[in-house]
Amino acid sequence: MKTNYKLKKTVNLFIYSFLLTTLVSAQNVDERQFQKIYETALSEGKAYDWLNYLSNQIGGRLSGSIQAQQAVDYTKLQLDSLGLDRVWLQPVMVPKWVRGTPEFAYFETTPGVTTNVPITALGGSIATPQKGIKAQVVEVQGIGDLAALGEAGIKGKIVFYNRPMDPTLINTFSAYSGAVDQRGSGAAEAAKYGALGVIVRSMTLRLDDFPHTGGLRYGDLPKEEWIPAAAISTNAADLLSTTLKLNPDIKFYFKQNCKQFDDVQSYNVIGEIKGSTHPEEYIVVGGHLDSWDLGDGSHDDGAGCVQSMEVLRLLKKTGYTPKRTIRVVLFMNEENGLRGGRKYAEEAQKKNENHIFALESDAGGFTPRGFSFDSPEADFERTKAWQKLFEPYLVHMFITGGSGADIGPLKNDSIVLAGLRPDSQRYFDYHHAANDTFEQVNKRELELGAAAMTSLVYLFDTYGTVAPE
Amino acid sequence: MKTNYKLKKTVNLFIYSFLLTTLVSAQNVDERQFQKIYETALSEGKAYDWLNYLSNQIGGRLSGSIQAQQAVDYTKLQLDSLGLDRVWLQPVMVPKWVRGTPEFAYFETTPGVTTNVPITALGGSIATPQKGIKAQVVEVQGIGDLAALGEAGIKGKIVFYNRPMDPTLINTFSAYSGAVDQRGSGAAEAAKYGALGVIVRSMTLRLDDFPHTGGLRYGDLPKEEWIPAAAISTNAADLLSTTLKLNPDIKFYFKQNCKQFDDVQSYNVIGEIKGSTHPEEYIVVGGHLDSWDLGDGSHDDGAGCVQSMEVLRLLKKTGYTPKRTIRVVLFMNEENGLRGGRKYAEEAQKKNENHIFALESDAGGFTPRGFSFDSPEADFERTKAWQKLFEPYLVHMFITGGSGADIGPLKNDSIVLAGLRPDSQRYFDYHHAANDTFEQVNKRELELGAAAMTSLVYLFDTYGTVAPE
Repeated sequence: MKTNYKLKKTVNLFIYSFLLTTLVSAQNVDERQFQKIYETALSEGKAYDWLNYLSNQIGGRLSGSIQAQQAVDYTKLQLDSLGLDRVWLQPVMVPKWVRGTPEFAYFETTPGVTTNVPITALGGSIATPQKGIKAQVVEVQGIGDLAALGEAGIKGKIVFYNRPMDPTLINTFSAYSGAVDQRGSGAAEAAKYGALGVIVRSMTLRLDDFPHTGGLRYGDLPKEEWIPAAAISTNAADLLSTTLKLNPDIKFYFKQNCKQFDDVQSYNVIGEIKGSTHPEEYIVVGGHLDSWDLGDGSHDDGAGCVQSMEVLRLLKKTGYTPKRTIRVVLFMNEENGLRGGRKYAEEAQKKNENHIFALESDAGGFTPRGFSFDSPEADFERTKAWQKLFEPYLVHMFITGGSGADIGPLKNDSIVLAGLRPDSQRYFDYHHAANDTFEQVNKRELELGAAAMTSLVYLFDTYGTVAPE
Repeated sequence: MKTNYKLKKTVNLFIYSFLLTTLVSAQNVDERQFQKIYETALSEGKAYDWLNYLSNQIGGRLSGSIQAQQAVDYTKLQLDSLGLDRVWLQPVMVPKWVRGTPEFAYFETTPGVTTNVPITALGGSIATPQKGIKAQVVEVQGIGDLAALGEAGIKGKIVFYNRPMDPTLINTFSAYSGAVDQRGSGAAEAAKYGALGVIVRSMTLRLDDFPHTGGLRYGDLPKEEWIPAAAISTNAADLLSTTLKLNPDIKFYFKQNCKQFDDVQSYNVIGEIKGSTHPEEYIVVGGHLDSWDLGDGSHDDGAGCVQSMEVLRLLKKTGYTPKRTIRVVLFMNEENGLRGGRKYAEEAQKKNENHIFALESDAGGFTPRGFSFDSPEADFERTKAWQKLFEPYLVHMFITGGSGADIGPLKNDSIVLAGLRPDSQRYFDYHHAANDTFEQVNKRELELGAAAMTSLVYLFDTYGTVAPE
């Protein structure tokens, strides 16, 4: 068959150049919106001021505490001032664990000479008897060592978990994952062999004097078999380990009077801009408002909260009208229960809200390096093509992987979940410790994170997700 | 012509698979060497301990000071202990500028009420008269504003340069470049219009109370026309600016008694591993040993020095035998003269040493993001292909651009110059100020930089540079 080849070619060329123009101009629009977002974030950002208040006027915000409630009130008030379409509190019952008076620990470095060492009760731990626990110590490199020691080696003793985080891993979260079972399950496992208590090396790569708290789980262990557990600073862990090598029979003493109370009322804080053309599709950006009680929770996760609030402010400030409904959710109780994340997903399902994208920031307020995506494959391929837009802003890493604990319960076959991935090197220096404070957050790094998040939310709002087949 | 097609195909396949195997195995060798370097750097690094000594036992190391000499002695001793083939001091005469007693400044916030403000003399500035200078202030946004004001607006006054670094630029070094002419040339330019002195807003993006020093140049201005210049903290600059808006006639007072002495003897510190197969080709890695006097010079550039020393230690420690001659050079006097860099290049030329690659670390001890290369085009294309090897270590940026001030004098048509590019967000928070201290350096970030540098030096040593056509 003969065709008018020349005409076809011309038409093809026309279509091609039309498509190209459209593509190029769409890209230019995206580039311009990115630029507006970044310029606004870096020259008139609000995240740092919000964080200053959360950290320095309120402080550590453990679930069920007065400070947690103050944080709910403060962030709602701030969201109210942004001119969003709706701001509300979503009730959720949360566990209430209280540390009580400061923990106390010492051991004999030389017979008759004791040294006090910094410890902190693990979140959810029971108290020691009022007079404390004094017992011999058995040092292990992990839960796997217990079976060989058996009851003969463990009963009546304190188990000291001392496997450090692996410093050779580049991503410190991988090093954390490789060590944190000692904190999470060490007490429950040691209890099965008759241990009296557990001391865990702090989950940090630094050698310093800060003990790092964090949740433990007793699992299905009967309550009467629970034993108390505390974290010890890395410097003190090294001192204890050396002392045990010289004299394996020394005794370790610790005392803590933490306590679990009945669940109390608390809230997720939610703000929303209603979508202009697809209001029935929901995009969520969030962090968790609760924190541990030792520091002021600036990196974990005050930073993620104020960045998420800033996303909605930046969208408005740059004059962008979202097509879809965009929500900021400040989740309550990530640290010791995840009740807020579960409640939010439960309510979303009840109301049949179609969540297409959720983004969490819960890895510190450091320079953003990229995002990790937990998403259907086609969507990840499409998303990965957006990486180019981020490169001028030195955001290079678009990888598959986890997203965030609070948005996890939203997972289904079609939603795209994502997590901001800031530089991880300093994170565990402060994580769950008394030095997680406002001074450790750099204003620009925090703002760059908020700008990167806003830019990604903008793209998902503009282009939606890939329709499931 | 008929050929035995099948045989040819087989031979081709054979050659192809041979080449592929060779390529793949070369890549595997590189990957394994990278892994060894990183693991050693992160698990048994020395850089942090060296920096601790340089910063906390010696402190700020201004050219010509006792501390600079102590730093020469200390680093030579440390290099001596590494079992290199040769360690020596390269004599170089350096300028000696001394700050003298602490500077003092105040202005009237309300008539009759004065406020003291933090200032620091700019490096190389002359002193004020002994009784100080008290004069009206004319605020400008840059050198470009002077002509319009003319002698009528400037003569007998203090010129206050207050253009801030641009916070919307992602790379803070670009923001620095866009503002630093005020510090470098502001005094010489204002003097031409009869100004009595100059006050410059500190070169930092933070709002705080630290004045940041740094060099100025009087250029070809006759010595009798030189005027004193100082930097003022950003908080104080904002206070002064607001005060001037309310009352343009207030007077500013400042006093400083800094002084330039005759040049004194100093040294570059050099260590060398002799090449096993191409000893006549030289690779240099370095930083500058001198620093300003306000802090302890941990980021600028203690970090670069200890990382460079660590490069040679890591090569040895990982059992790598360099083909080419590898030198660490700790340059003296980058901050106010560049005499060390010039002397090293001069001596290299005299001895006809063929330098093929030089790498400097002088942008802080923060998480490495990449390298910038000043190199012949073919070499950059080849180098860029190596970027893939660095990605598992989260080093993503291979760009063209500047390298380092000290290695600049080595530039010729064939050498590849490179600079480590760490994350830049925090750098100017500390740069040339009293808070550039050891506490601001993170051990892992410092070590990751040393590992990235070592890996790049390994590649250039193994593969050389592209031969000039």
